[in-house]
Amino acid sequence: MKSNIELLNDCDQILPKLNYYKFRITGFGNSFGTLLEDVVQRCSWGRQWHVDHSETTVTLDAPDIAQRNNAMHEMLKREQEKDTFMQLRKWSNEVFPVYGPKKELVMSIERVAAPLFGIVTYGVQLLAYHEDDSAGFGLWVARRAKAKRTFPGMLDSTVGGSLPTEETPFDCLVREAEEEASFNPELVRKHAIACGTVNYLCLTDERSGGEIGCFTPEVQFVYEIKLPQDIIPIPGDGEAEEITLMTVPQLKKALAEGEFTPANGCIVLDFFVRHGVLTFENEPDYIEIASRLHRVLDLQTA
Amino acid sequence: MKSNIELLNDCDQILPKLNYYKFRITGFGNSFGTLLEDVVQRCSWGRQWHVDHSETTVTLDAPDIAQRNNAMHEMLKREQEKDTFMQLRKWSNEVFPVYGPKKELVMSIERVAAPLFGIVTYGVQLLAYHEDDSAGFGLWVARRAKAKRTFPGMLDSTVGGSLPTEETPFDCLVREAEEEASFNPELVRKHAIACGTVNYLCLTDERSGGEIGCFTPEVQFVYEIKLPQDIIPIPGDGEAEEITLMTVPQLKKALAEGEFTPANGCIVLDFFVRHGVLTFENEPDYIEIASRLHRVLDLQTA
Repeated sequence: MKSNIELLNDCDQILPKLNYYKFRITGFGNSFGTLLEDVVQRCSWGRQWHVDHSETTVTLDAPDIAQRNNAMHEMLKREQEKDTFMQLRKWSNEVFPVYGPKKELVMSIERVAAPLFGIVTYGVQLLAYHEDDSAGFGLWVARRAKAKRTFPGMLDSTVGGSLPTEETPFDCLVREAEEEASFNPELVRKHAIACGTVNYLCLTDERSGGEIGCFTPEVQFVYEIKLPQDIIPIPGDGEAEEITLMTVPQLKKALAEGEFTPANGCIVLDFFVRHGVLTFENEPDYIEIASRLHRVLDLQTA
Repeated sequence: MKSNIELLNDCDQILPKLNYYKFRITGFGNSFGTLLEDVVQRCSWGRQWHVDHSETTVTLDAPDIAQRNNAMHEMLKREQEKDTFMQLRKWSNEVFPVYGPKKELVMSIERVAAPLFGIVTYGVQLLAYHEDDSAGFGLWVARRAKAKRTFPGMLDSTVGGSLPTEETPFDCLVREAEEEASFNPELVRKHAIACGTVNYLCLTDERSGGEIGCFTPEVQFVYEIKLPQDIIPIPGDGEAEEITLMTVPQLKKALAEGEFTPANGCIVLDFFVRHGVLTFENEPDYIEIASRLHRVLDLQTA
């Protein structure tokens, strides 16, 4: 049985004693990511890339989005051919956005390469619930399809997805809610409420099937929707095997038994904090949990 | 007109370029506070106190609560007589709790001395609101009495107060809600909902009337209560001059015009984040605001 702080520690992890480099882009004062020293040393980099071992930085020297995307793509493809990194074997042809300090798109990066650079990725999460004066909260929880590559068969939020380049979080949520739970877009646009973010710094491990100890910081945009009793989510696209209604005692049991994925367990804990299910009086690690679920990531975020 | 991130920066402040010492207590691995170097050097300390300038620590060497309280009280009284610190001129005879890593009470400290040691203090905040499908949110906002020493005449949450030693946050809230807003304790016990914490690191400045640059980190336990239309808060104890209902546009205007105290402005921003008034799409600094309102304080907290 896991305590709530152990669930948070599973997702927002303690830094290992390894050396890291900062990822910089010429023209910006901030860093955009964090690379394992081992990744920096095994890569052959090439033109437009500057590695400074005394400053522990890797800098991409390209003046615009197109040139940055090209330089990144060429380098990654070359390393993929040489099979330098296990992470690159699963090439997805999907790209993630990298944002600058003013929310502007700075470049895009192949999805499976994001952990090599330790770039912040973004996602959306929706919890759909019923509330009843006598029965309390009922949360609609999705069980991941057994065919999924990561965490097959484990429990998730009602709806969740990664934010692709050039879609706003709310548009992404409306689309995912229709695809994954068959929610009418108008219902979601009208009744889903943004409730803040859940942030964590995860590290790649054995389960990730690639380099170990890479940063995978994430910002999850969290939404909730209180459903009328007659509306029920129905799995739409095969991501979820089923979506079932769970009471608070059932949710607590499933959390303690490790049935939720690490990230989605935190989304449920955040709901519990927001709605007074967890309190200072009943949760020994209340302040740490309520704070760390929203930890400030020491990396560029949109 | 202030932006929302400027309001947050007014409360959760950037560290000045000053040197600080950690406050330690023998037998505990963590630090309990942060002292200005200038404070460390002007104080004469005495028996049971060990100042280590190379480690930049001040350690209180006393084995139990009674001895710690005595050693602290004696030292503070001696410095007060010598008028070493402006902060100690306003001696209150109220004490704040200092908690250990397991929520246990470790010692108490005179309220006005807390900033000298940079100890985390705790408070409770309640926002009472009405919600209407057509009119949206109405929040009950207190205007501080003109006679108050700090921030006279400015706007506050519906109810707020500091957590004294040995009262739980929820009991403190129920008591303060009755004293300040004439709320029936049963109503509050039944309907007030814990929603997490708002944390910030404030620094003393000219307005504080004492040493400048001292740490005053705070953890606010945040509650909300949705009021039936026929229940209205009425100022009870002279802390508030009036408690008035404000719409979201009125709240935004009052925030931008700096009418709220820095801390209470953050409590309203947190409500806005939790209830979808602020979103990624309408607030340029959404991620930073949603995260930093809950910043992890790098100090011992209960």
